[in-house]
Amino acid sequence: ARPRVGYFYAGKKNDEIFGEQLRKMHVKDYKAVPAVIAETATVYDAIVTMFVEDCGTLSVVKEHGILSGVISRKDLLKVAIGKQELDTVPVSLVMTRMPNIVTVTGEETVYEAARKLVENAIDSLPVVKVIDALTKKFEVVGRFTKTTVTKILVELGSNRDI
Amino acid sequence: ARPRVGYFYAGKKNDEIFGEQLRKMHVKDYKAVPAVIAETATVYDAIVTMFVEDCGTLSVVKEHGILSGVISRKDLLKVAIGKQELDTVPVSLVMTRMPNIVTVTGEETVYEAARKLVENAIDSLPVVKVIDALTKKFEVVGRFTKTTVTKILVELGSNRDI
Repeated sequence: ARPRVGYFYAGKKNDEIFGEQLRKMHVKDYKAVPAVIAETATVYDAIVTMFVEDCGTLSVVKEHGILSGVISRKDLLKVAIGKQELDTVPVSLVMTRMPNIVTVTGEETVYEAARKLVENAIDSLPVVKVIDALTKKFEVVGRFTKTTVTKILVELGSNRDI
Repeated sequence: ARPRVGYFYAGKKNDEIFGEQLRKMHVKDYKAVPAVIAETATVYDAIVTMFVEDCGTLSVVKEHGILSGVISRKDLLKVAIGKQELDTVPVSLVMTRMPNIVTVTGEETVYEAARKLVENAIDSLPVVKVIDALTKKFEVVGRFTKTTVTKILVELGSNRDI
């Protein structure tokens, strides 16, 4: 039987097709809402915010949602086993600080974002809008995490012929 | 040009092909080594073990590596904002306990494992060998996490025709 037009992939293996598909999907269509905390908040506030927002990494922001740092559960556990009181340590003291933060824009592909997560061994990327590239002024507009990737894989994998 | 045999997928969409592919991949071929801690350890020990093993969830085991519970960074942060000393609280007090643990076997598919992560909103599954199904006696043989899924997606997506 002759295959239908548009359903026909000559000379390509399954994983080549998949690689192409992932490069057509963009971060802006899959990102989650941002989870943020102010620079002036304490480590205690950050832990509570993580429970409230049900997430594992927070973007630390200054005025107008401009990205200043990132704080992870790991950073917080490190403080927890130390000697300081959690409600006296500001997040700005333990966060990873700009410009040492790996970010992604909405226009980048899902493949590129997933690769950044793996290569940098991190759980989450702030999705940013570039306000000023020279001074690295980025506005936080979302987050792209290993949870996002897992949901995408399940969604893609749910479609089948059987 | 006539397509080569074996590279020809009539009547199937990209995501159908991908769904089939994910159902041919098994957890045993992708799982990471287990990260475990003894039931008798303290919350402080668990935090230190997470840093040493570089992971976010530990399987709590009794003798012979039998699964007893699971402890996450979230469980540990919950203790950290409480009033108790971390080195006096045993992990058995704060862990999720059998039989309330979602597990996966090596024979299950990567798709099935990823679906369990999403549906239960967890970061990690203990990969187990069933010793006695009736009494739910499971030996921990690995872990399957959102990191595993992200690595799989990047690996699959790296193959392309361009």
